[in-house]
Amino acid sequence: MDQALTGTFELQKQAGQARAARLKTARGWLQTPVFMPVGTKATVKGMLPEELRELGAQIVLGNTYHLHLRPGEETIQRLGGLHKFMNWPHPILTDSGGFQVFSLSQLTKVKEEGVEFRSHLDGGKHFLSPETSMQIQMALGADIIMAFDECLKYPATDDEIKTSMDMTHRWLIRSKNTMTRQESLLFGIVQGGLEFALRRTSLEQITSVDLPGYALGGFSVGEPIELMHKLVQEVAPLMPQHKPRYLMGVGTPLDLVLAVDAGMDMFDCVMPTRVARNGTLFTWHGRVSIKRTEFKEDANPLDPECSCYTCQNYSRAYLRHLFMSGEILSARLNTIHNLHFYLTLMNRMREAILENRWETFRNHCLTRFVN
Amino acid sequence: MDQALTGTFELQKQAGQARAARLKTARGWLQTPVFMPVGTKATVKGMLPEELRELGAQIVLGNTYHLHLRPGEETIQRLGGLHKFMNWPHPILTDSGGFQVFSLSQLTKVKEEGVEFRSHLDGGKHFLSPETSMQIQMALGADIIMAFDECLKYPATDDEIKTSMDMTHRWLIRSKNTMTRQESLLFGIVQGGLEFALRRTSLEQITSVDLPGYALGGFSVGEPIELMHKLVQEVAPLMPQHKPRYLMGVGTPLDLVLAVDAGMDMFDCVMPTRVARNGTLFTWHGRVSIKRTEFKEDANPLDPECSCYTCQNYSRAYLRHLFMSGEILSARLNTIHNLHFYLTLMNRMREAILENRWETFRNHCLTRFVN
Repeated sequence: MDQALTGTFELQKQAGQARAARLKTARGWLQTPVFMPVGTKATVKGMLPEELRELGAQIVLGNTYHLHLRPGEETIQRLGGLHKFMNWPHPILTDSGGFQVFSLSQLTKVKEEGVEFRSHLDGGKHFLSPETSMQIQMALGADIIMAFDECLKYPATDDEIKTSMDMTHRWLIRSKNTMTRQESLLFGIVQGGLEFALRRTSLEQITSVDLPGYALGGFSVGEPIELMHKLVQEVAPLMPQHKPRYLMGVGTPLDLVLAVDAGMDMFDCVMPTRVARNGTLFTWHGRVSIKRTEFKEDANPLDPECSCYTCQNYSRAYLRHLFMSGEILSARLNTIHNLHFYLTLMNRMREAILENRWETFRNHCLTRFVN
Repeated sequence: MDQALTGTFELQKQAGQARAARLKTARGWLQTPVFMPVGTKATVKGMLPEELRELGAQIVLGNTYHLHLRPGEETIQRLGGLHKFMNWPHPILTDSGGFQVFSLSQLTKVKEEGVEFRSHLDGGKHFLSPETSMQIQMALGADIIMAFDECLKYPATDDEIKTSMDMTHRWLIRSKNTMTRQESLLFGIVQGGLEFALRRTSLEQITSVDLPGYALGGFSVGEPIELMHKLVQEVAPLMPQHKPRYLMGVGTPLDLVLAVDAGMDMFDCVMPTRVARNGTLFTWHGRVSIKRTEFKEDANPLDPECSCYTCQNYSRAYLRHLFMSGEILSARLNTIHNLHFYLTLMNRMREAILENRWETFRNHCLTRFVN
């Protein structure tokens, strides 16, 4: 029998900074590096849970902000929790709601106590704080819960960043003090903008609180991508070695390879699912827009190297036709392909690390992927 | 080995006018009564072919008008035909394009030669005639091909109807003369408006041409539903006994039961798929709008009697949430349920006829379904 405690994190292999590891959640082990498909509103857009599982998804992400507004965490709790609600019996990570409060809602007022905001749906007043965010995430029944943090807009001054990350630190302590759900793992979020010195200070603040995992937040806010790469490369190795490291909201295949190379373990991003719906598909030879006129009568699969259901059963011509016709099946087949690509990429990275050929595989990816 | 010729129609059992039968197509037998899900643009909206098959779909319908405009029948032909294009290796029926020319396109000019119209997509000029409609349907590779007919708007005068149905008769002869594809079965379409006398005349005209099947067209154009019921009841028994009888574009569960009772065998309708996307679901206790506020925290399946994937795995509350959130999965789960309902209804009608309990089953349905 598997006796490991929830939260156990085992490093299995290291190659430079890159790591293969596993994390025990209340609903089983996660093999890392791991990509978490985003299920914002209790569904990964267009996909059935069984399909996600078949593609190799180990864990999905749910959004606290969206689920709080609709249908509400109390409703989901009364219905048996988020896992049961969305028919996904495997691990779920919920974010804190912070990122969406700052990016989606209006008339946001930030105070030490928390954040007052108006719903982007109906303008209704809401309040999120470390305490309410934890309560919502516990009510949802998430296996991994993110501390409530402030996400600053980019660019911000050093003073703004310092003031904000100090509050994020105090909010983390309040988040931890509110956490009463034994089965859930609380992760803290390092902020600190895009300069190494401030990031390091935030890292020290956040890791001074003992937690089962730590994340880097505050990216994907419009900063130059090279800045993010550089900072992750500098900061990741300073994060606790024996805890999972989660890079929030990132990124492209190239971003993922570079971040794994820097020592990050966990990732989430709407990119594969969102761009799929816009007709952009990932292949080992780069991104492809399915709209291209040259595909009109192309009988080949999108990616002849790909073993996904879409590539095994449909031509580029059919995928183009579905997209041009605005058919729901276009979103489905494209999403299947892109998630298959991301999840396969993560698997291959993990295998390469475990089989002592990380550097070769990484270099292979770096010659093929461009941002 | 199954030696029956394509087009063979075997009556298996009759109960009053209701019939259980089977029709041999180039891609296997159809067990009737049969409902054909509508795959307008080479996809039944939101569904994979494997899912349709699992739900019990025997045959799907493709729309000549839409496929001619996009991606074009020549493209589909060069890609190996419609079956291969959409990954559906089972029978396909295509309509003639007539209905859409009259309902969707603009600046339509009807002449003896054919119909000139402008595409509803880009305003481009197109021409459909008995000859071009047959050529398109043959290029698509349909197993059942519909003759090109004129669909009059409702209401129309007797003179308009007479003139139109005479032309439909001449167009049928031209359709038949153009048909060179041995594997495809050509069905003629009876028009004649909503008066019995004219319908009977059209029926005589159309059935004077020897064909493997006959259809009733010109319904679902805005006429009072009782008129349609009455007319089908009067006309169906006059249609050739040993040929399949297809009621085009109809209808609700009640319509289907009444039409089977009148002696019709084949049906297609966008209703189960279209209303699914609008949140209306069919159950054995009537139609249900999934939006209803009372479902907000309802943990029950939509229909506790239903064995479909949706009802087996999701609550009313979740279905409502997906619909209110405009999620793709809402369309998928609702479509699965509605098609399961329609296909199960057809199966049960067939079984009831075969098992000598048609009248009981029909009456059971009539007490439960309302239009």
